[in-house]
Amino acid sequence: MIDFNFKVLEEDGESRARLGTIKTKRGSIQTPYFVPVATLATVKALDACDLLALGVQCTLANTYHLHLKPGDEVIKRLGGLHGFMGFDGPIFTDSGGFQAFSLGFGREHNINKIGGVFPDGRNAEEKRENLTKIQDNGIYFKSIYDGAWHFLDAKKSMQIQANLGADIIMAFDECTSPLSDYNYTKMAMKRTHEWASQSLDHHDRTQAIYGIIQGGWFEDLRHESTEFIASLPFDGMAIGGSLGNGKKDMHQVLDWIIPKLDDRTRHLLGIGDIDDIFECVQRGIDTFDCVSPTRIARRGNLYLSPESGGTLDNKFRLSIKSTRYKEDPNPIDPACYCSTCSRYSRAYLRHLYISKELTYFRLASIHNIYFMLRLMEKIRYGIKSGAFFELKEKWLGKI
Amino acid sequence: MIDFNFKVLEEDGESRARLGTIKTKRGSIQTPYFVPVATLATVKALDACDLLALGVQCTLANTYHLHLKPGDEVIKRLGGLHGFMGFDGPIFTDSGGFQAFSLGFGREHNINKIGGVFPDGRNAEEKRENLTKIQDNGIYFKSIYDGAWHFLDAKKSMQIQANLGADIIMAFDECTSPLSDYNYTKMAMKRTHEWASQSLDHHDRTQAIYGIIQGGWFEDLRHESTEFIASLPFDGMAIGGSLGNGKKDMHQVLDWIIPKLDDRTRHLLGIGDIDDIFECVQRGIDTFDCVSPTRIARRGNLYLSPESGGTLDNKFRLSIKSTRYKEDPNPIDPACYCSTCSRYSRAYLRHLYISKELTYFRLASIHNIYFMLRLMEKIRYGIKSGAFFELKEKWLGKI
Repeated sequence: MIDFNFKVLEEDGESRARLGTIKTKRGSIQTPYFVPVATLATVKALDACDLLALGVQCTLANTYHLHLKPGDEVIKRLGGLHGFMGFDGPIFTDSGGFQAFSLGFGREHNINKIGGVFPDGRNAEEKRENLTKIQDNGIYFKSIYDGAWHFLDAKKSMQIQANLGADIIMAFDECTSPLSDYNYTKMAMKRTHEWASQSLDHHDRTQAIYGIIQGGWFEDLRHESTEFIASLPFDGMAIGGSLGNGKKDMHQVLDWIIPKLDDRTRHLLGIGDIDDIFECVQRGIDTFDCVSPTRIARRGNLYLSPESGGTLDNKFRLSIKSTRYKEDPNPIDPACYCSTCSRYSRAYLRHLYISKELTYFRLASIHNIYFMLRLMEKIRYGIKSGAFFELKEKWLGKI
Repeated sequence: MIDFNFKVLEEDGESRARLGTIKTKRGSIQTPYFVPVATLATVKALDACDLLALGVQCTLANTYHLHLKPGDEVIKRLGGLHGFMGFDGPIFTDSGGFQAFSLGFGREHNINKIGGVFPDGRNAEEKRENLTKIQDNGIYFKSIYDGAWHFLDAKKSMQIQANLGADIIMAFDECTSPLSDYNYTKMAMKRTHEWASQSLDHHDRTQAIYGIIQGGWFEDLRHESTEFIASLPFDGMAIGGSLGNGKKDMHQVLDWIIPKLDDRTRHLLGIGDIDDIFECVQRGIDTFDCVSPTRIARRGNLYLSPESGGTLDNKFRLSIKSTRYKEDPNPIDPACYCSTCSRYSRAYLRHLYISKELTYFRLASIHNIYFMLRLMEKIRYGIKSGAFFELKEKWLGKI
């Protein structure tokens, strides 16, 4: 039987924020926690030793990508994800449904989960091309790698995730967009519910499995989806799909869902801006995953704490390419103790970035991941010591 | 006064191979040694902590590149190369003359030092453009970064290298090509001799300085250049310029030069294939520098020892992109103990390479650098134990 367990250790008196521990056979995850994403079995620019050195508790890999490259059966034969990527801690995999959305519908409409455009502009040709066909039985999608058509349904998603051998897997779902209307979102939610039951049927109980709550930004659908998914024997609850057209909508969606949930652990898929972390922890989220720390690092955006000038306005980031850092002998964030900040100056990092040196990407990613992990540590300490709101105010200002 | 000293500790009875120690104020270099190249103040894909972990004794950075980007005066203000790149060991810089050749004449003619074409094909437009004008007073060259014209002479090269603050610097020289005829090569050699004296005049004796022997692949010129450069009070001898039209010519050139040298240390510029290392150590070279281990790593070529199937024919390399490694659970080289081979399979590295994951470049570079350093260690042990030729035969086969 599965070795998985979530315990709430402490609750914040003034909000739904809570301190907890997810126990798996490969180690524990102290929550609230930000899970770094290892899309193709590597957190981009880092290796498993870097993750160990950073104290990363767990990581999340992508079913869609790994199914296509190098193939989940190849990974299975090489010892599963843990053996393949050399990481011994707990690993999550997603269901593949989100990529079918983001690389299909989302890409066509150039839109992301909360109504924004994708940060990297897609070209018109890509947008015109229909990359996904969603039917009641599953999703047909065109591989972004070789253009071949593939099919994914609950059974297949479970098989792939079993082959990958993650500790925590996700039920198969359909992710909708903020552009989807009520009727489409409802239809997709019904499919997601059907697929949730099928996922449990095709799941062998050696991995923990989270159900995914859908319903877009429609109150009655979110209520219905929360009740249905929570009624099934999932080990944890994930919140997916469109979260509306901005951060306020996202908070609203969480306020509809969370009060209806029991004590099982709650994962918010694909969210990771610093203000979102505070707002969603406050609303009762235990874990997050997002590619943003490493993605923004690759684009020259490095996290900055409030002590070093980080604010909501600058999104707690500096842009290392700025000429103002050309001769700056200070570390990225003088209040940071990561291995990059301990050794290298802004001037050196700027030089590496401007010169497109490969070394830059790793040093920058180490800083941004370390920064997020330390933020989560501070949040956990804040909850434990009854100072969560004090911490939030220090970072986000008076609300 | 300068803290620099070279001692021969042991000589091979059957050849000119020798074991030695270069002492600098930042540490010692056991020779024969292969010096990894940090073109732009970083060994590509690695950081200074990686170099420490690899046990890298010293590194070589490029005057030409760093003068242009970020600028040697910027680096000076940031603590020199050691402070800038966070590396405390001995650092060499070259004179800038080779880049003026390779990015000027060499690029125009698509030719490298030993008559081969540059591994990365230059486009016709680049070749047509005249990027360098060499005169008796110095070299005018067009920056490869922004197309602006710059001027380099002995005085300027000494100033730049003083700003960079390397422990071991090179006299300013003109590097000729295998395509240069006798008369041109002679003229360039005369200039190099003039510049060698000027380099000493403009050098403040806080850094060790090597003279560079030129003369192409013409016996009388190499004799003349060796005698002249060796007559000057340089701390070490470097051998530069065209080494003929193939490996045999290179051995011939060394056989002309080395017997005329005294006990000062000898550096061979820009050479680093495994068979070359053996042949040149045998002929009395103490140190080498070359970008090849990291460059070939980035292109998917990973070193393989004889125990694991490396031969002269396969250049002691495997090509990780080959489908044969798709499910190969073995490390790159089962006889290697580097951190990459200790943790990751060929299958994982192939997956990272095929997926263009940034993580690949570092793991591959670590392996290739480690491999070269261990080879040098074996060569040193071979000389010490009187087994150099045995080792050479094991690697290169019966001669």
